Amino acid sequence: MIRVAISGTGRMGSTVYNAITSAEDMEVVGVVDPIALNFDIPDEITTHNDADQLFELVKPDVVVDFTNTEAIPRLIKAVLNHNVRPVIGTSGLDVDTLSNLKKELSKKRLGGVVASNFAIGAVMLMYFSQLASKYFDTAEIIELHHEKKVDAPSGTALTTAEKMRETRGSDFINNIPDITHIENTRGGLLNGIPIHSIRLPGLVAHQEVIFGSDGQTLSLRHDSTGLDSFMPGVLMSVREVVKQDIFFNGLDSLFGLK
Amino acid sequence: MIRVAISGTGRMGSTVYNAITSAEDMEVVGVVDPIALNFDIPDEITTHNDADQLFELVKPDVVVDFTNTEAIPRLIKAVLNHNVRPVIGTSGLDVDTLSNLKKELSKKRLGGVVASNFAIGAVMLMYFSQLASKYFDTAEIIELHHEKKVDAPSGTALTTAEKMRETRGSDFINNIPDITHIENTRGGLLNGIPIHSIRLPGLVAHQEVIFGSDGQTLSLRHDSTGLDSFMPGVLMSVREVVKQDIFFNGLDSLFGLK
Amino acid sequence: MIRVAISGTGRMGSTVYNAITSAEDMEVVGVVDPIALNFDIPDEITTHNDADQLFELVKPDVVVDFTNTEAIPRLIKAVLNHNVRPVIGTSGLDVDTLSNLKKELSKKRLGGVVASNFAIGAVMLMYFSQLASKYFDTAEIIELHHEKKVDAPSGTALTTAEKMRETRGSDFINNIPDITHIENTRGGLLNGIPIHSIRLPGLVAHQEVIFGSDGQTLSLRHDSTGLDSFMPGVLMSVREVVKQDIFFNGLDSLFGLK
Amino acid sequence: MIRVAISGTGRMGSTVYNAITSAEDMEVVGVVDPIALNFDIPDEITTHNDADQLFELVKPDVVVDFTNTEAIPRLIKAVLNHNVRPVIGTSGLDVDTLSNLKKELSKKRLGGVVASNFAIGAVMLMYFSQLASKYFDTAEIIELHHEKKVDAPSGTALTTAEKMRETRGSDFINNIPDITHIENTRGGLLNGIPIHSIRLPGLVAHQEVIFGSDGQTLSLRHDSTGLDSFMPGVLMSVREVVKQDIFFNGLDSLFGLK
Repeated sequence: MIRVAISGTGRMGSTVYNAITSAEDMEVVGVVDPIALNFDIPDEITTHNDADQLFELVKPDVVVDFTNTEAIPRLIKAVLNHNVRPVIGTSGLDVDTLSNLKKELSKKRLGGVVASNFAIGAVMLMYFSQLASKYFDTAEIIELHHEKKVDAPSGTALTTAEKMRETRGSDFINNIPDITHIENTRGGLLNGIPIHSIRLPGLVAHQEVIFGSDGQTLSLRHDSTGLDSFMPGVLMSVREVVKQDIFFNGLDSLFGLK
Repeated sequence: MIRVAISGTGRMGSTVYNAITSAEDMEVVGVVDPIALNFDIPDEITTHNDADQLFELVKPDVVVDFTNTEAIPRLIKAVLNHNVRPVIGTSGLDVDTLSNLKKELSKKRLGGVVASNFAIGAVMLMYFSQLASKYFDTAEIIELHHEKKVDAPSGTALTTAEKMRETRGSDFINNIPDITHIENTRGGLLNGIPIHSIRLPGLVAHQEVIFGSDGQTLSLRHDSTGLDSFMPGVLMSVREVVKQDIFFNGLDSLFGLK
Repeated sequence: MIRVAISGTGRMGSTVYNAITSAEDMEVVGVVDPIALNFDIPDEITTHNDADQLFELVKPDVVVDFTNTEAIPRLIKAVLNHNVRPVIGTSGLDVDTLSNLKKELSKKRLGGVVASNFAIGAVMLMYFSQLASKYFDTAEIIELHHEKKVDAPSGTALTTAEKMRETRGSDFINNIPDITHIENTRGGLLNGIPIHSIRLPGLVAHQEVIFGSDGQTLSLRHDSTGLDSFMPGVLMSVREVVKQDIFFNGLDSLFGLK
Repeated sequence: MIRVAISGTGRMGSTVYNAITSAEDMEVVGVVDPIALNFDIPDEITTHNDADQLFELVKPDVVVDFTNTEAIPRLIKAVLNHNVRPVIGTSGLDVDTLSNLKKELSKKRLGGVVASNFAIGAVMLMYFSQLASKYFDTAEIIELHHEKKVDAPSGTALTTAEKMRETRGSDFINNIPDITHIENTRGGLLNGIPIHSIRLPGLVAHQEVIFGSDGQTLSLRHDSTGLDSFMPGVLMSVREVVKQDIFFNGLDSLFGLK
């Protein structure tokens, strides 16, 4: 059994708590709650507002952190102090914090990971799109989200197009119509890849990358239908960091996908 | 057995010939070839370069015409002279020609149809999109074609958006993002409907209309993968015009879809 | 403003309450709670455990009912006593109850509706599948649900196949392979329509009907991603029953879709 | 310019001829036609019914072969005699022939490839499905083909399921419904992966692999719409074998995809 501590008691922390409790090969041994408990934790689980003291009490193998940049420095100190492997989902950490954490964990030969996206399907979609970019000269991205999304295109679409260009080494080839009946139907262009943003009620978060070649198309699609879509990635990370002895940036690195 | 004459011996005429020959409830009784034969016709089938004389010889119930606007006046004269029901796929006929043909056929209580699109699936897609437009406030159109298509968006996408607006009676409601990372990813707008045009090798001719509402989407899609996609519509038209006693404009009219 | 009473305070009643409160052309004037309140209702909204007495107090135009078969008789009595138009989502009502309600409402020239499915997209999907069944000889149904669904195929798939057969008047034509490498990949057969059931975590509730013909396919798909998918249908029903003077069985009847 | 000889003058040979002629970085320098020419070859292209003699005359870098198992021995002899790199699409070659060819080419440090499937999109689909199999516990395959296909499921579906199982190391987890309204809708099972075969006119050759996990699905799809779908893979193979110094079995091996 992998002994897991949870850092953060917001909606993410609560979902992580339930997922780890349901997994057969790990158990929650304690919860760090810097402020106030936001979800019901059984009395038998140790809780503490300070990570260092909680780790002293429960000796976890791994800590899963979904807090904020202010809470991170104390967490890192506690992690290094007690040799706990970190799985960090908190976003916005600066480069120095990350490179320092990487250096210190390497010295101790401890695994760990920080990732902005734990949806394993989205990580796969981006990786496969990169791989396919070497073998196809044309591609388009369609990203579909609920109508309340404030921006377009999605951040994932932008990242995908950047990674595809990087792997390919040159821009994609893009059809430009001779005759335009209505402006802009060919979408927004990044690296030779037209990006199309669909916004409709009833949609959640979806992305499709279509590659075209003579007589064939290859379509890669990720559909996210729930907030629990990041849980499998968190559980896999917990299992992986106990086997590793360095710190990884991104799920694709941790899983050897790039 | 419905006795069918074919007018026109180009690629369409040839395909129609094969389709009718294969159908169990109809037979080709003659072919009108105004210029020169472009496909192999068995010797036992009567051919003539003049429709009136061919009809005199073979007494067809129906004539299927895929020629051009120059050949049409003589065909119409022959149709009315011999009481043959016309299924016309020739495009570009002027309003007077059509209204006159309609009037004359009505007097004789003869069925007939002219249509620009015999792909029954495309006709259905447009009709269902119209119907759904009464019950959804948001919709987007994605049309996908091979990379050699010279224009964007497709004519079918434009027609679909026009029919949807007409049935609904008002523009659709369209999400406009607050933040735009790349211009134009929301597509081209017609009647409140964003239209997105995908152009890739490997695609043929496809269109999807997506309607969104709370917690659900309804997607209607037509995929055309071959030049024979119009044949079922032609055969159904042949069967239908022999039962009707007026002339229809469009397959949707003939089949009572509007 | 349409004055609406809500009957039932379970999860459905609560969702209906929020939807009607958000709509601009209607307002909640009272809530019937036969047992105990299950959701927070503002103090200014009149509540009562008896429908008859609530209707006396608040004079609603329409009542939306999501309760159970035991609560229905008293609701119907109150409806007829106070000339309130019913929108009933409670399932399992017997034929006599429904035919009697229909008769009494007709006498009073009052509109009303009972429906087992208020997801307007699912209703459309079934209706369009019926219509297309006249024009295609082959069709297959793919229904996709979360892996916890206990039965296969889904009830909606069965209903769809029945309606398609009914409209068509004969079974569909079904390909039977000469060589079978693995048994059963061609799915389960109903009325000549192969039905395929997909069960995966991450799916919610989806159905696709694919029609095939020479050189083309027509695909109709409904994706349900949330419990609120029935709300637009409830709101449309409220608006429609105040204009009608008879009682309808099914949303498709109310909206003139069959 | 890569100098390419073509072996075989059937439909595949003819398509290869056109593709290579259109490519900017290669040219057809000769055609081996063991029997009789089946397509028009310009007079300036050297043709011969014997590979050895043709290679002597035109000194090709690469030969692309789509013939049959009877013609292969003489081709291999000529290939080794003249140090020509082979791209072989002929299927049914026995293990000894292949291992011997591999040994001999390695000695000479010459690249080469034999593959049963040159559709690069199909090769990618299988490879990505293998990779994803490590990260998902549930998956289903839907393969869709025209109604005239004699067998079910498709060979590609079987191969995909085998490769997925191999990479994963154990069977997938498969939902079995408690209640079955119609038999067999859950498809045919291989390695814990339900396979569903759709057969409809209008379809060509398509395969989708859907992976499911909490709150998300990942869908990988290949659509083949034309006979030219294998051409990009052939051209890429020609370019790749001139850089390599061993013989590969399968496009995935040649492109380093496994």
